[in-house]
Amino acid sequence: MEGSIAAAAKPVIIKVAALCGSLRKSSCNRGLLRSAIQLSRDSIKGMQIDYVDIEPLPLLNTDLEVNGTYPPVVEAFRRKILEADSILFASPEYNYSVTAPLKNAIDWASRPPNVWADKPAAIVSAGGGFGGGRSQYHLRQIGVFLDLHFINKPELFIYEFQPPTKFDSDGNLIHQESVEKLRQVLLSLQAFTLRLRGSS
Amino acid sequence: MEGSIAAAAKPVIIKVAALCGSLRKSSCNRGLLRSAIQLSRDSIKGMQIDYVDIEPLPLLNTDLEVNGTYPPVVEAFRRKILEADSILFASPEYNYSVTAPLKNAIDWASRPPNVWADKPAAIVSAGGGFGGGRSQYHLRQIGVFLDLHFINKPELFIYEFQPPTKFDSDGNLIHQESVEKLRQVLLSLQAFTLRLRGSS
Amino acid sequence: MEGSIAAAAKPVIIKVAALCGSLRKSSCNRGLLRSAIQLSRDSIKGMQIDYVDIEPLPLLNTDLEVNGTYPPVVEAFRRKILEADSILFASPEYNYSVTAPLKNAIDWASRPPNVWADKPAAIVSAGGGFGGGRSQYHLRQIGVFLDLHFINKPELFIYEFQPPTKFDSDGNLIHQESVEKLRQVLLSLQAFTLRLRGSS
Amino acid sequence: MEGSIAAAAKPVIIKVAALCGSLRKSSCNRGLLRSAIQLSRDSIKGMQIDYVDIEPLPLLNTDLEVNGTYPPVVEAFRRKILEADSILFASPEYNYSVTAPLKNAIDWASRPPNVWADKPAAIVSAGGGFGGGRSQYHLRQIGVFLDLHFINKPELFIYEFQPPTKFDSDGNLIHQESVEKLRQVLLSLQAFTLRLRGSS
Repeated sequence: MEGSIAAAAKPVIIKVAALCGSLRKSSCNRGLLRSAIQLSRDSIKGMQIDYVDIEPLPLLNTDLEVNGTYPPVVEAFRRKILEADSILFASPEYNYSVTAPLKNAIDWASRPPNVWADKPAAIVSAGGGFGGGRSQYHLRQIGVFLDLHFINKPELFIYEFQPPTKFDSDGNLIHQESVEKLRQVLLSLQAFTLRLRGSS
Repeated sequence: MEGSIAAAAKPVIIKVAALCGSLRKSSCNRGLLRSAIQLSRDSIKGMQIDYVDIEPLPLLNTDLEVNGTYPPVVEAFRRKILEADSILFASPEYNYSVTAPLKNAIDWASRPPNVWADKPAAIVSAGGGFGGGRSQYHLRQIGVFLDLHFINKPELFIYEFQPPTKFDSDGNLIHQESVEKLRQVLLSLQAFTLRLRGSS
Repeated sequence: MEGSIAAAAKPVIIKVAALCGSLRKSSCNRGLLRSAIQLSRDSIKGMQIDYVDIEPLPLLNTDLEVNGTYPPVVEAFRRKILEADSILFASPEYNYSVTAPLKNAIDWASRPPNVWADKPAAIVSAGGGFGGGRSQYHLRQIGVFLDLHFINKPELFIYEFQPPTKFDSDGNLIHQESVEKLRQVLLSLQAFTLRLRGSS
Repeated sequence: MEGSIAAAAKPVIIKVAALCGSLRKSSCNRGLLRSAIQLSRDSIKGMQIDYVDIEPLPLLNTDLEVNGTYPPVVEAFRRKILEADSILFASPEYNYSVTAPLKNAIDWASRPPNVWADKPAAIVSAGGGFGGGRSQYHLRQIGVFLDLHFINKPELFIYEFQPPTKFDSDGNLIHQESVEKLRQVLLSLQAFTLRLRGSS
């Protein structure tokens, strides 16, 4: 009896790995991840978002794999994905698709054993045009092979260059309505993660 | 009179830049480009295919752009694309999309001024599954923004792992039927290039 | 005590609505659905697949909606989708995308209230080229807005025109290896349906 | 001498077939085509746009083909496409893809012999979200098999529900800036058509 009370008192913490497709210092897409991390600390119980840096990864070349092992930075990156319960992508659109650094990270973590497998995921983006939209649909197709389970709704596309101003010059999200939309994405990812593990 | 004879005698040479999405040494997709180069020398008059290495390019980060100039390896790469009349992509499929090294090269050359603009292009690929097919359709969507004019037909998807053997262990295309299909792609690219420049 | 034994003895039955994108009488894609129905009867406990005919639906024109009601054939179709627990699409590829009759059915059932919402789904296809593959990825993108949850694996693309013979002249699937692959798709759909409802 | 003057005086007239994916009476996408027709009459020399109705076409079922002939309404439709020099699609987005009526028309005209083959084409759309954008990329993929040559630029996506008002309640385009953008699409289609036929 007491045991079950204790169990009930200990909340389930979902660990989310957050990746940004842009390497630019003041990227708005990275700004979205900073906002997401802040939101998870301030107002989303049971969700811990950790930023995972993809910049150190070498350009994928399977000749770099020796006896089934990967370069140390790749191994470290793969471990972080493996340990995450779900994934949050900030995926800017470059030339109507995902960026090379993001695809590179995705491809490294897909090498056997594929460490993305069976994880819930969400995508957010900021940009001109469709607010990064075209990259999101390419990423969803990529996710079929990775065996990611993307939430369907809400989708978040932030129109970076339309008024009102969404980001400051350092790429911080300063538009409260967008922050709230981002919070809805995180809540949806949390709910879908719990549902898929059978503890919702 | 003599002038026009001289003009007729001097064939138009189309210069094609050939890029491979895989960095692997024995990549079959790079093997396709070697075959294409050989074919253009042996049996396609008026077409010169030059292999353009994308491996030296750093991962795209627009912070590397200083005063509108690019790192020297990027500038050298961009010049080769600019000078080409048309483009040949060997685009392997990684996780249902284009590879990171290829996307990286594409993105660098799209930075202002976009040096892909208004060039005819063709895609070939080898692989499992759809023979690289999914990457080709993502690349076509990317090409809309780049302003590339892709040939529609023939499409070439080489089923690498289905009999008969298509490639040797070094990635050389040794299957004559596939070589002939590749030749048809090159002829189509040549014809479309001439047509778009008004000299067909 | 006895109650819980009785409950355990009563299996959960998942009801699957099965739709075919081709209206041809001897369509192989419809043949896939006949096989799926047979499999569910013979060897998959707890799954009932019902074929839903889409041929009677008029071409979608929202002017046909009067006071928020739909033509009777549309209402009847929508009810069948609403009552299903999950969806099985046999989606042939016409011109590199889904067929018009299938898109028509999809669009009718998406009219408010969207009766596809939150249902697990799977796609199978037969055809030339990629075995219907290009239609599957368009359908997956469509499913994002419909809020369908597609299984990622296994994917089933049946190469209709490659040996060995897969279908007889009436479109019946006669190739045992393909039947077994189809069974794996159904089992995956069943498992994902149970998982999403929290009873796996 | 006189002959060549006469020839020069006779302008080349490009005939464009214009199709709308929506059957709704007050469709804004059909409104775009009315504007295009008006523009071609008023201010684009050498371009004649004819609206082609797709509503009478039956849902595609190849069982309706008898001895290689098509139902009369299908034959009439196919003839109009065949006689056109290029194609203008007004392609609304339904559930993240093209509409069923448009896909239906496309599929009928692709039946052998494919009457779309080798024609230049352009797409315009109006809608919520991405202004119909997702349908345009599906349509471009469809066009690869049809062998259509789409212009790359400019792309036109009209955000129907964002201020300022773009259309009146009958679906007429009343926003001058959008009219001018539409004119640029038509000019680009005209130029690409002339270029591809070698008379630019």
